[in-house]
Amino acid sequence: MTMYSFIPPHRTLMGPGPSDIAPPVLQALGRQTIGHLDPLFISMMNEVKQLLKYAFQTENEFTIAVSAPGSAGMEACFVNLIEPGDKVIVCRNGVFGDRMRENVMRAGGEVILVDDPWGAPVCLEKVGQALQKNPDAKLLAFVHAETSTGALSDAQALGQLAKKYNVLSIVDAVTSLAGVPLKVDEWQLDAVYSGSQKCLSCVPGLSPLTFSPAAIDKIKARKTPVQSWFLDQSLVLGYWAGEGKRSYHHTAPVNSLYALHEALLLLKQEGLESSWQRHRQMHEKLKAGLLKLGFDFVVDEAYRLPQLNAVYVPEGIDEAKVREHLLNVYNLEIGAGLGILAGKAWRIGLMGYGARAENIALCLKALEESLYPSDLKLK
Amino acid sequence: MTMYSFIPPHRTLMGPGPSDIAPPVLQALGRQTIGHLDPLFISMMNEVKQLLKYAFQTENEFTIAVSAPGSAGMEACFVNLIEPGDKVIVCRNGVFGDRMRENVMRAGGEVILVDDPWGAPVCLEKVGQALQKNPDAKLLAFVHAETSTGALSDAQALGQLAKKYNVLSIVDAVTSLAGVPLKVDEWQLDAVYSGSQKCLSCVPGLSPLTFSPAAIDKIKARKTPVQSWFLDQSLVLGYWAGEGKRSYHHTAPVNSLYALHEALLLLKQEGLESSWQRHRQMHEKLKAGLLKLGFDFVVDEAYRLPQLNAVYVPEGIDEAKVREHLLNVYNLEIGAGLGILAGKAWRIGLMGYGARAENIALCLKALEESLYPSDLKLK
Repeated sequence: MTMYSFIPPHRTLMGPGPSDIAPPVLQALGRQTIGHLDPLFISMMNEVKQLLKYAFQTENEFTIAVSAPGSAGMEACFVNLIEPGDKVIVCRNGVFGDRMRENVMRAGGEVILVDDPWGAPVCLEKVGQALQKNPDAKLLAFVHAETSTGALSDAQALGQLAKKYNVLSIVDAVTSLAGVPLKVDEWQLDAVYSGSQKCLSCVPGLSPLTFSPAAIDKIKARKTPVQSWFLDQSLVLGYWAGEGKRSYHHTAPVNSLYALHEALLLLKQEGLESSWQRHRQMHEKLKAGLLKLGFDFVVDEAYRLPQLNAVYVPEGIDEAKVREHLLNVYNLEIGAGLGILAGKAWRIGLMGYGARAENIALCLKALEESLYPSDLKLK
Repeated sequence: MTMYSFIPPHRTLMGPGPSDIAPPVLQALGRQTIGHLDPLFISMMNEVKQLLKYAFQTENEFTIAVSAPGSAGMEACFVNLIEPGDKVIVCRNGVFGDRMRENVMRAGGEVILVDDPWGAPVCLEKVGQALQKNPDAKLLAFVHAETSTGALSDAQALGQLAKKYNVLSIVDAVTSLAGVPLKVDEWQLDAVYSGSQKCLSCVPGLSPLTFSPAAIDKIKARKTPVQSWFLDQSLVLGYWAGEGKRSYHHTAPVNSLYALHEALLLLKQEGLESSWQRHRQMHEKLKAGLLKLGFDFVVDEAYRLPQLNAVYVPEGIDEAKVREHLLNVYNLEIGAGLGILAGKAWRIGLMGYGARAENIALCLKALEESLYPSDLKLK
């Protein structure tokens, strides 16, 4: 088999992530690699920490990027905060809540499930009841923005419940960070992780993470070692400490961190509030077009994520064939349904740099031409 | 604090990694991001698998890149192959052997340590004795090329010992892959991991990994789930399966995989044997120059890695000051000592694209001028 350099086409990425990357981020990514212990790189990592604090709206000293995708960020939270036997209330209203359940089990925790329908937000009453019934629970875990359905849960109210019942919260903010309001300190959230490839519009492969002082206290008080060496944040802490005395842990993904630095700078320049507003405005524009095309949304308007629009596939349409057509003819990627929505829904992302009028225009026109073709049979 | 885009200087990377990146690899890295489920990306991942098989010299079907640095590749081997209570013989002759011990303990295994001095290779007799004394051992773990000392162990003989005593082998090939002969199938090695940022001259952040059919059988026969969800290779297997039925596990680091694809293509073009030979030849050149400057090597010639040259810091020299000088004046990075060699040795890497005559010339001249300055006081 003869192989050649891989030259990717220029796609417009409107799936659930990776999202469209801003050109300066790709430029940053391709710059000369320097050593991960180079003083200049350490300074840059310190800036990344500062910029992540802004993005998360936190003063948490422990605010870093895990050197692996969001699912490793999730696991970092669970393996560091759970000790064997710890009872964890897990809210499940989609794929990623179920992945949290998996994580708790593998970390030796005991799962108390609070189930809600796919497409609905986490129900505060049920969570309150679960907390009341389980006074020995140590943690409350929930997904802020469910990427499998596009539903937004009330992280502020859930954070309050956690404080009221004196448990720590673990929050999946993979799809929410920079797309909708997320205020880690004001909402008193304890362990929050995200992904680089969603509303930050950075390349996939990094997982921003922040731990509150209370979370750090629980980690420091552990009686058993963290089961993962790679994700043991007490070791990683020394690595991100900076100030000349960095202890070696692993080799940082240098170039990906250049890209994250640039993506976070762009976010800072735009401003968080402006970014939230832009996602909201672009969602309104897309929504109007989708409704005009006859689409139904999976999630009620009150809980709908602007950055992830799940819509039902129209009756009688071969959904995979339409996505293939969009990709091949328009270089446009939209997302398939995941889990119980597989084959039934599409997920249209408006994330970060991808939340632009030109992307929406392309998406609406391409969908219209693909669903109501004059010369094509897609059924 | 005002922050700007990070523009790294052009360093020459002659530490223990990351190594100098070949320009086509950086170009590949910065190309347009496409979706991780895009058919074109899946085809590219299949090529990466083929190219990794060539690099590892294996026909193992399970040959992939873990979406995280080498230390995650190490952990992937241990958490997948160890079940609680499994006895594991761990050879320790440097930092990374000790990290293996940590991994075994955290995965619930029982460690039988075989210690050798830093700078020496793993002693075959001791390993044979340990295997004989522990007929219930399940695994033998060793480091092929110790990055902390520059010592090469006899992976072929150790692989034979493992087969003789019917245990599976776990091999750290982070620094050896593409730099010295490594023949996974011929040497009957079972679980071998490496890193992207050493002799492959790719950006840091990925860990090539291969499992033999026997290793896969042990994983399939597990009675307990793998403690890590992110590193559970039975899930990852479905992700790398390709052929249109890829199951979603995590979002692949798309751009880093572009870079790995390109780096592996360059290796294929050069040829593995030529790459081994080039590392050997460049080592001879560097060695001659270092001896002329009066340096002593940490490792005996018979076991010395061509791609990682550990030399003792000359008496009375402030080693950190010299490295700082090399970095600031010559944009040249060499590595500090690690573990018990901290402050006592330097590690000079000749890895992948970095193993070139011009790098050696720069390094020798810069060292000479820094150690014997006419107008500088470095002592």
